[in-house]
Amino acid sequence: MERAEVLRLGHRPERDERLTTHVCLTARALGAEAVHVDGKGTGPVGTAREVTRRFGGGFEADTVGSPRSVVRDFDGNVAHLTMYGEPVQDVIDDVREEPVLAVVGAGKVDGWVYEEADYNVGVTNQPHSEVAALAVFLHEYFGGEELEARFAGGEVEVVPSASGKETRSIRDSR
Amino acid sequence: MERAEVLRLGHRPERDERLTTHVCLTARALGAEAVHVDGKGTGPVGTAREVTRRFGGGFEADTVGSPRSVVRDFDGNVAHLTMYGEPVQDVIDDVREEPVLAVVGAGKVDGWVYEEADYNVGVTNQPHSEVAALAVFLHEYFGGEELEARFAGGEVEVVPSASGKETRSIRDSR
Repeated sequence: MERAEVLRLGHRPERDERLTTHVCLTARALGAEAVHVDGKGTGPVGTAREVTRRFGGGFEADTVGSPRSVVRDFDGNVAHLTMYGEPVQDVIDDVREEPVLAVVGAGKVDGWVYEEADYNVGVTNQPHSEVAALAVFLHEYFGGEELEARFAGGEVEVVPSASGKETRSIRDSR
Repeated sequence: MERAEVLRLGHRPERDERLTTHVCLTARALGAEAVHVDGKGTGPVGTAREVTRRFGGGFEADTVGSPRSVVRDFDGNVAHLTMYGEPVQDVIDDVREEPVLAVVGAGKVDGWVYEEADYNVGVTNQPHSEVAALAVFLHEYFGGEELEARFAGGEVEVVPSASGKETRSIRDSR
């Protein structure tokens, strides 16, 4: 079975707060089991935990002191998302044969990442967004099945609607 | 043929500068023809134009004073991306029958957007990121064909690589 974790490299407090939060929440929403934030990313990690508490699922978020250890210790394929990499559509079938650690940078990414990754993967070879790249990568990795996932154990869930905002409290029914 | 444009609502200068830039660049990289930024989004629009100049393609970016006019005047389907919407996988075949204007908010989205959109579309019904939602939406709308697009007329292009960073200047060959 596919399983994914995400590593956010080079988080800079203040500057990257919102983008790292988007990385964390995208990881959770699109089927990853965990996100690891390199550096003092307690804000985004806290937000991801709070969203998990409210909206359910078993997602885990933490900060890490040594991203290189996370890469080296990961049991599966390490896929570094970069505009310089091989097209996602060409490598995803191979990547999918094992659990994956998807690695996304904030600023400039150190050379060791390119070397130690099993795959350097481009979601297009155009400059855009690590959040967008992560989203398409996970969507391809899980073959779209992540869109059907249920997140159990939360307090609230959205009722899909054609025209408005509807939520359902699930606190009382437990 | 599928065609897409993107409308970024509620851009707040300073606060949303980087996220709106990611929205603009994601729109371009994943096949949209244009992005319209509601409000004083000259920074992100300038970045999108500069990327287009360097990396090619016919992408257009502008700021708009009346997002509601953009929605009303669009000739095709208006798809507002929201965690409260109908699952993207359920509606994308219908959306794809016409050109699409994908609408993404920054902060809270006004009620008229929900009402005037032809579709309110959820890329999952979980809270995550408008950048991620836009990416998966465009990827689904274009059926993955956007990943094969070429961007002609730029100064430089990336040579996809398994292990490093390689670019090719195409200025001399024109």
